[in-house]
Amino acid sequence: MHLFYQPEAPTIAALTEDDSRHAVKTLRLGMGDEILVTNGQGRQFAGVITKADHRQCAFRITEEKITPARPFSIRICVAPTKNLDRIEWFVEKAVELGIEQISFFFSQHSERRVLKTERIEKIAVSAMKQSLQSWMPRIDEAVSFKQLLASVSDEGQRFLAHLPDHEIPSHLFRAAQTNKIYTVLIGPEGDFAEQEIQQALQAGFRMVTLGPNRLRTETAALAACQMLNLLNQ
Amino acid sequence: MHLFYQPEAPTIAALTEDDSRHAVKTLRLGMGDEILVTNGQGRQFAGVITKADHRQCAFRITEEKITPARPFSIRICVAPTKNLDRIEWFVEKAVELGIEQISFFFSQHSERRVLKTERIEKIAVSAMKQSLQSWMPRIDEAVSFKQLLASVSDEGQRFLAHLPDHEIPSHLFRAAQTNKIYTVLIGPEGDFAEQEIQQALQAGFRMVTLGPNRLRTETAALAACQMLNLLNQ
Repeated sequence: MHLFYQPEAPTIAALTEDDSRHAVKTLRLGMGDEILVTNGQGRQFAGVITKADHRQCAFRITEEKITPARPFSIRICVAPTKNLDRIEWFVEKAVELGIEQISFFFSQHSERRVLKTERIEKIAVSAMKQSLQSWMPRIDEAVSFKQLLASVSDEGQRFLAHLPDHEIPSHLFRAAQTNKIYTVLIGPEGDFAEQEIQQALQAGFRMVTLGPNRLRTETAALAACQMLNLLNQ
Repeated sequence: MHLFYQPEAPTIAALTEDDSRHAVKTLRLGMGDEILVTNGQGRQFAGVITKADHRQCAFRITEEKITPARPFSIRICVAPTKNLDRIEWFVEKAVELGIEQISFFFSQHSERRVLKTERIEKIAVSAMKQSLQSWMPRIDEAVSFKQLLASVSDEGQRFLAHLPDHEIPSHLFRAAQTNKIYTVLIGPEGDFAEQEIQQALQAGFRMVTLGPNRLRTETAALAACQMLNLLNQ
């Protein structure tokens, strides 16, 4: 059955304009057809379409299922890649695998200086629906590296994915403990500036490696996300 | 330094035509410049350009580094997705993370009936170079599901990523042992046909889950690949 996203459900028992069009025009759903609706805050509703209007498709709730928040939370902070597709697929895949928060920052070495999150938000929503989840991850607007560090709370585990030339740090999969609040910083395509690394270490971030191979920014971001999910499965 | 791929090295001490053009025209490398060359079979050569010809860039080998094959091997078998981009990024990411063999098969439920592997081969080569590896994964032409099963040797561990309705099978990450030869079958977008599942089970494949969320074909394929890499790190 199809899952739709209505942040205002159950207060509003009608699909958003986008989802209404999708349900009625694309999927040809009609009166009496059963649908699933999530509010992205852990509540999923089974419903029946009562008004198949492509501008506002109304439904009657027949059942509710509550999914509690996970006992851990994953926040990945990444610098936008030069090629936007790469960040967009990271978002789609990270949401499918499970993530609570995606934050973007501009590093000294990142070429891209502008990032519109509207399209990224849409990608996250459809990935949440596609993977049948009931929690919508938080997508943060891009900020400076300094602002990003300031936004990280002191609780939980903080990791910096970076390979220094001299020594190899411990593997994220071993450094992370289960059921924690994780924040991981992923280096930009040009890697972090030395100053940024020092700022992160001072802010309580621990240097980790993600494995033996040199990974692209978006691959590293996804690898970190999956490791932390796997650790808690 | 830039890594190039010359399967015939060291017998042939010149870059391929593609790499010659890339080295001389794009990267503007010239006589005396240092390069790295791998033969994709574990041998990496440090060299110096002796003839900066954009059709055949010759080099002199100054050093050789041998990377032994990994004590485990990962083979992911996946049905081509309707949208080719999805398979192409799976290949890029799987090669970055580490994979020995990628095999394609046509399932009863897969819409796409043709797959040209030439472009996929190119993507794998550039991902190998980009992640600075010395082993080129094997990319198999797409075959029927029956032919695929026949191509799987009896040695090693065989897994089928599939969620039956009734019970939840064990997690791939727990079912897999370290240092084995792994073969994983990933379901097509329409999922496996019941008959295909039975054929796989008869062929010694064990049903596993990849986690709590419903994953797209290419996401499942990459997740399985990363789990097996992680298990052996």
